[in-house]
Amino acid sequence: MLEHGLVLTGPELVPMVDADVAVEDGIIAAVGSPPAGWTPDERIEAAGKIVMPGLVNAHTHAAMTLFRGYGDDLPLQEWLSQRIWPAEAKLTAEHVYWGSLLAIVEMLRSGTTTFADMYFFMEEVARAVEEAGIRAVLARGLIGLDPAKTEKDLAAGVEFARAYRGAAGGRITTMLGPHAPYTCPDGFLREVVAAAAEEDLALHIHVSETRRENEEMRARTGKTPVAHLAELGVFSRPVLLAHGVWLEEGDIAVLARHRVGVAHCPGSNLKLASGIAPISALHKAGVTVGLGTDGAASNNNLDLFREVRLAALIHKVREEDATAIPAGLALRFATVGGAASLGLAEKIGQITPGFRADLIMLSLHRPHLVPGHDPISHLVYAAEGFADVTDVMVDGEFLLRDGRFTRLDEERIMREAERLGRSLVG
Amino acid sequence: MLEHGLVLTGPELVPMVDADVAVEDGIIAAVGSPPAGWTPDERIEAAGKIVMPGLVNAHTHAAMTLFRGYGDDLPLQEWLSQRIWPAEAKLTAEHVYWGSLLAIVEMLRSGTTTFADMYFFMEEVARAVEEAGIRAVLARGLIGLDPAKTEKDLAAGVEFARAYRGAAGGRITTMLGPHAPYTCPDGFLREVVAAAAEEDLALHIHVSETRRENEEMRARTGKTPVAHLAELGVFSRPVLLAHGVWLEEGDIAVLARHRVGVAHCPGSNLKLASGIAPISALHKAGVTVGLGTDGAASNNNLDLFREVRLAALIHKVREEDATAIPAGLALRFATVGGAASLGLAEKIGQITPGFRADLIMLSLHRPHLVPGHDPISHLVYAAEGFADVTDVMVDGEFLLRDGRFTRLDEERIMREAERLGRSLVG
Repeated sequence: MLEHGLVLTGPELVPMVDADVAVEDGIIAAVGSPPAGWTPDERIEAAGKIVMPGLVNAHTHAAMTLFRGYGDDLPLQEWLSQRIWPAEAKLTAEHVYWGSLLAIVEMLRSGTTTFADMYFFMEEVARAVEEAGIRAVLARGLIGLDPAKTEKDLAAGVEFARAYRGAAGGRITTMLGPHAPYTCPDGFLREVVAAAAEEDLALHIHVSETRRENEEMRARTGKTPVAHLAELGVFSRPVLLAHGVWLEEGDIAVLARHRVGVAHCPGSNLKLASGIAPISALHKAGVTVGLGTDGAASNNNLDLFREVRLAALIHKVREEDATAIPAGLALRFATVGGAASLGLAEKIGQITPGFRADLIMLSLHRPHLVPGHDPISHLVYAAEGFADVTDVMVDGEFLLRDGRFTRLDEERIMREAERLGRSLVG
Repeated sequence: MLEHGLVLTGPELVPMVDADVAVEDGIIAAVGSPPAGWTPDERIEAAGKIVMPGLVNAHTHAAMTLFRGYGDDLPLQEWLSQRIWPAEAKLTAEHVYWGSLLAIVEMLRSGTTTFADMYFFMEEVARAVEEAGIRAVLARGLIGLDPAKTEKDLAAGVEFARAYRGAAGGRITTMLGPHAPYTCPDGFLREVVAAAAEEDLALHIHVSETRRENEEMRARTGKTPVAHLAELGVFSRPVLLAHGVWLEEGDIAVLARHRVGVAHCPGSNLKLASGIAPISALHKAGVTVGLGTDGAASNNNLDLFREVRLAALIHKVREEDATAIPAGLALRFATVGGAASLGLAEKIGQITPGFRADLIMLSLHRPHLVPGHDPISHLVYAAEGFADVTDVMVDGEFLLRDGRFTRLDEERIMREAERLGRSLVG
């Protein structure tokens, strides 16, 4: 049981002072005071700390940590064709395993307890997740550009999703991951949708990330990417839509109607000069919004508190309105919003009895968090994941305790990632 | 002597591996290898660390740390009139002293070694600077709206600037601080310029922070704020111009011609929905650019690495160009750019023999800085001041050593700031 904390409770993150959180069998058993007659196994002091739901990183490519800092400040096409793709061609299962572990170290240290990943060698990502104790929603990336391969790829994607759904004691769920409308031809997308329907799977897909993507789709089909995907039946499945920078008004109505979750990735969208997604409009239309870091090659840091802060900052300028995306809303994007966008709304994202015990503690004893006028403001505008998160729990198990990993060998992971990162470049 | 570091040298921050930095009498004596025959008093291991110039925070109001998180997400006028101004009316010398110390703790911990401040009770700020060992450029804020007070205020500003120039063993320099064109009538500004000329002082002033400021100035004078200030002779003095969000093309030429330094404050400008300053155009025109946090009420964190990262991110979207403000340039804004904008170009901002030994060390042994493809990229896009800065030296003296303050009582400062912060609100 965590005792005497400043606990942010329920979907609205309502602060409750001097509150306890009782955890039993990986589940939040009670909030405020322990259940009558209940005896905790352990009492953990949370005075002077914020206790809040673990953050949900709704879109990343974990193993891309190995490319961190390899080719910044380049035009998108040059970055992809001369840096990322040649390096990705060298990727092996070993790279993905250790690169994913590095990402998990980074995410746990900065307060993320669940992440949605789309990449290759996904069995290795699943292995890393299983060992690390974190929660994840995994999809094999599917690219339909090479007709000789698409059928095999789709089969592999379905096979992975089937084999790993519910793995790691329920910590892993799976999706199908058609990469994007411009890398997946129409016929291929229809097959993916059919497979998803048959297997009862959701889809994780990049949509409207760049202005160019929208222009090319309009030239080809006369429609926006979202309108085109709607016509192909993609939204007949639950969808996690990454980026959505160039969504138009009509698109937003489609996403709201189909309960699509949007993974907003402000850091990546700024760094790649993609633009600023219309998040205020999405939120007003009732679309579920989560936050993602994207891969570390385009960010370059997986601390989701940075994305929370960017989400609270950049839309104020986009809308010329200092009240746009207030702090509490940005923080809900990263918790309940992320959980809902990943299909886990009933399970994680809030400190509420009956939810899985995925939670984090941050110390308020930091110069940049003094004076304590407003904890929500401090979390969004002043806190830093790496500096302030002290404890991380997933499914009731501490994975980080007083700044130390309980399961992971951080030193070895950094060493292997350094070696493997160097092997990919140059 | 610092040994075996990854040293970022000269104004261009050129990385030199396995390099030493020799310090003598507060001055950088040699970079690379020690001078022949020179014996250091102490050898400090810097292997696995970046050694770089301390950052220069070119615009802040240090004591506003006491208002951190007190009234976010409000429209600017409501924020000022209902929150900040009533709270500021309660400020005493004690508040400013402890609030400034809290700011200094935060700045040192995150790698800032010099800051430019404009506020009230500046003797208290100077006392805090003197005790803390940090470097500062101080100006009493001058507001000319009350005719009964202006003469006395100006005299006090001049008196402060005269009394404290060169104080704290040369660590303090001073300016005159006319707040802004919209709070300083024309006649008053002319008097300030005359006094600055007589005392050989530079000016620190807020200009074109909001669209409304520009519109009101145009309605009153038919000119932009910069054009109006030029007419009043303000640019006959060296000027540190804060914000500059709404600078126009003609303004930029004026600033370039008069060698004005612009303190770009991206975090504050986003949070208050002011806009994004035309920094690419300023840089191309040859204008000196520094970076500032502004006060902690509008930021809400004084880690200048955040501003470096924002500067490298937001202009990419503003210009729709992923190559805008590359990492190295953003970092130079925070070092040589800041130094030049504060009139200290010959003294600080680079690791070059003959410059004051104001430098910092960051550990590269962090998961978010692995693999080590590019140290400049890591500093700008991935590092965090609080998590990664381990050592801070000003004038050759360690103020932070292995994460511990040598002079300051951090616990007491946090305690006093908490108490005094609470006394201002509610």
